[in-house]
Amino acid sequence: MKRDKPSALDTVETCLAAIEARDGELHAWKAVDPEFARRQARALDASPVHGPLQGIPVGVKDIFDTADLPTEYGSPIYKGHRPAADAACVALARAAGAVVVGKTVTTEFATMVPGATVHPLDPRRTPGGSSSGSAAAVAAGMVRFAYGTQTVGSTIRPAAYCGVVGYKPSYGMISRSGMKLGAESLDTVGIIARNVADAALLAAASSMRDDMLEIERVEKPRLGVCRSPNWHHMSAEGIESFESALERLAAKGARIVEKEMPLDELDAATAIILVYEVARGLAHEVTHYRSSISPMLLERLDAGEAMQYAQYAKAIAYAASCRWRVRDACADIDAIVTPSATGEAPLGLDSTGNTAMNRLWTLLHGPCVTVPAGVGPAGMPLGIQLVGLPGDDAWTLAVAAWAERALA
Amino acid sequence: MKRDKPSALDTVETCLAAIEARDGELHAWKAVDPEFARRQARALDASPVHGPLQGIPVGVKDIFDTADLPTEYGSPIYKGHRPAADAACVALARAAGAVVVGKTVTTEFATMVPGATVHPLDPRRTPGGSSSGSAAAVAAGMVRFAYGTQTVGSTIRPAAYCGVVGYKPSYGMISRSGMKLGAESLDTVGIIARNVADAALLAAASSMRDDMLEIERVEKPRLGVCRSPNWHHMSAEGIESFESALERLAAKGARIVEKEMPLDELDAATAIILVYEVARGLAHEVTHYRSSISPMLLERLDAGEAMQYAQYAKAIAYAASCRWRVRDACADIDAIVTPSATGEAPLGLDSTGNTAMNRLWTLLHGPCVTVPAGVGPAGMPLGIQLVGLPGDDAWTLAVAAWAERALA
Repeated sequence: MKRDKPSALDTVETCLAAIEARDGELHAWKAVDPEFARRQARALDASPVHGPLQGIPVGVKDIFDTADLPTEYGSPIYKGHRPAADAACVALARAAGAVVVGKTVTTEFATMVPGATVHPLDPRRTPGGSSSGSAAAVAAGMVRFAYGTQTVGSTIRPAAYCGVVGYKPSYGMISRSGMKLGAESLDTVGIIARNVADAALLAAASSMRDDMLEIERVEKPRLGVCRSPNWHHMSAEGIESFESALERLAAKGARIVEKEMPLDELDAATAIILVYEVARGLAHEVTHYRSSISPMLLERLDAGEAMQYAQYAKAIAYAASCRWRVRDACADIDAIVTPSATGEAPLGLDSTGNTAMNRLWTLLHGPCVTVPAGVGPAGMPLGIQLVGLPGDDAWTLAVAAWAERALA
Repeated sequence: MKRDKPSALDTVETCLAAIEARDGELHAWKAVDPEFARRQARALDASPVHGPLQGIPVGVKDIFDTADLPTEYGSPIYKGHRPAADAACVALARAAGAVVVGKTVTTEFATMVPGATVHPLDPRRTPGGSSSGSAAAVAAGMVRFAYGTQTVGSTIRPAAYCGVVGYKPSYGMISRSGMKLGAESLDTVGIIARNVADAALLAAASSMRDDMLEIERVEKPRLGVCRSPNWHHMSAEGIESFESALERLAAKGARIVEKEMPLDELDAATAIILVYEVARGLAHEVTHYRSSISPMLLERLDAGEAMQYAQYAKAIAYAASCRWRVRDACADIDAIVTPSATGEAPLGLDSTGNTAMNRLWTLLHGPCVTVPAGVGPAGMPLGIQLVGLPGDDAWTLAVAAWAERALA
């Protein structure tokens, strides 16, 4: 029966050919090592043990350590750097049979300054970031899934812009060992995939959660619409797409209620926590390589260094209290539904887009999943985002899979 | 005026001589590079800028990355490994003028299996662990302070055993960037120092907290005695020392109340979180170097791999709820006071001692400080531990400094 499936080597060759064909224009990949990929594939084909990811190529955002591929964290400081070990999630994907084909482009230390990647549907537009390369590579069909990270909106937004599925698991669900840390209270390993089932598959392997290999089938979920305190950032096409998606979800049986979330100060808290922590997390680079850091990031690092601990500690405590309040507010729903981004992927490659629809949720630590919800007036994809409570990843993915079907 | 102070080079030479004189028996250091230390000292002496740690030698537990010294994480897997960057805390200490003299011995990946370090007062006894080398080096007067970490009891316990000060800051206060992560919900950068003022000094520099450079002066603190659900682990000498310390603190003006803490399941939650997370955090090592991992650690890793996410998620949620309950219980006190360890450093070098007095507090994420409280019947030091709420580090250190004076 196994002969019905393509060999790992065949799958890898198809993947490498797709990268070869289009990456000259997309720049989704920072490093690809075809021979390393083929070696992994041959070893898998020769092995009697087949894991759940057997022979599936995976892209790894270049913010994760890899022992066999250069790891530059989107910064010239680490040009040609080769770590001693794979990040934990990479090791787990490989142990489950995945083939690491290369490293995908990240912004500088997964912050703001973009790498070279362009949007697969329009090279004048950003693919989003910081997981730019992973989103573009999946959207272009080069790989079924790829690792991203999310500190503000770095998995959900690029996935939505590129018209694929993005999944930011609960904070801590996938180990960050071997990931370049920036803001520890926010940094989360994320996944970009062509669909919810694939996102769950890679997440299950990455966290040793066999219980997530199969997604439960949901009927008529109760969805709480959160327009969030950042609603004024929404574009007209973003609002129109969101309202249309809600109508389609309701038509397919979702019970939709409006939810006021007590999150007014959360945006400010995120901004404080982010700059405070990043300034400390990147202390080595600031001390020794100041001139190799972009002016935009340096400004943030300097602001973080000057920030008082009392302000930071207050923001941390506020975020913890919000997590409890959101838990109460969500008692009668299966998931929150909210836009994945403020609109279509914007024109221009200097910015990775507006994070306003993402940053609240990252600090709340629950799972977020974006699924495609159609296209906007510029022909660019738009997504909707399902958000759950910390720990409720399997259920949130199940609801997202329902929404994915409903909106297909 | 500056001439009144010894030069950085003089201080470093004194430190190196102390290491040379005694480390052949203590084995506190895994790597010392005298020439690297002297180079740093000369550069500091030549600089017009003097930071708060100007010229002070610091030891770095070998679980932190250092670009200039080997970094082996207590494991043969990483023999001779040289990372590309310093851990963030190391970079910050150096930026503040500290001189990194070497790496101190850690247990295997900061878990259970000890390195070669012996207790400075009795070579038949464990110095505690996992920050074994840092505690022994400070206790032997080789350095004023050293970095440790605490995942269960790895800073407070060795400091108490060795008769020095140990400080586990609030979870997240000092960035873990460049620390080998094991159990992310527990791993905390710690400090071992000859006194509370020095611990605060290194912590202030390591977190860019100028507000912690000076410790506030406390009078007559209100202390809540917590005998904890693990009290049955206490040795007779540990209990006697603790009660005696309470009497002395009361005699110096402390207002002491008994506190029942609602922590009954916290010990079990810690055990679950620890093995679940470590099994994932060390995925690379388990996958590729299984035979180079100690049987004791492997057993734990296998148990963690087999553990269900639901059990883990429940433990995480329970810990979060305990943090809120402890906050309420501590409203009328300045700090919790509890033993630092179950008794004196035990005989034998196969174990680093009983963690029962530490593990509850690590998961609660608040600051813990151990200060010396006398010696036991075997002539070994005993400590008492002051515990605060997350974020209240400056105040908890102030209370600890009061207790240090009161017990001196």
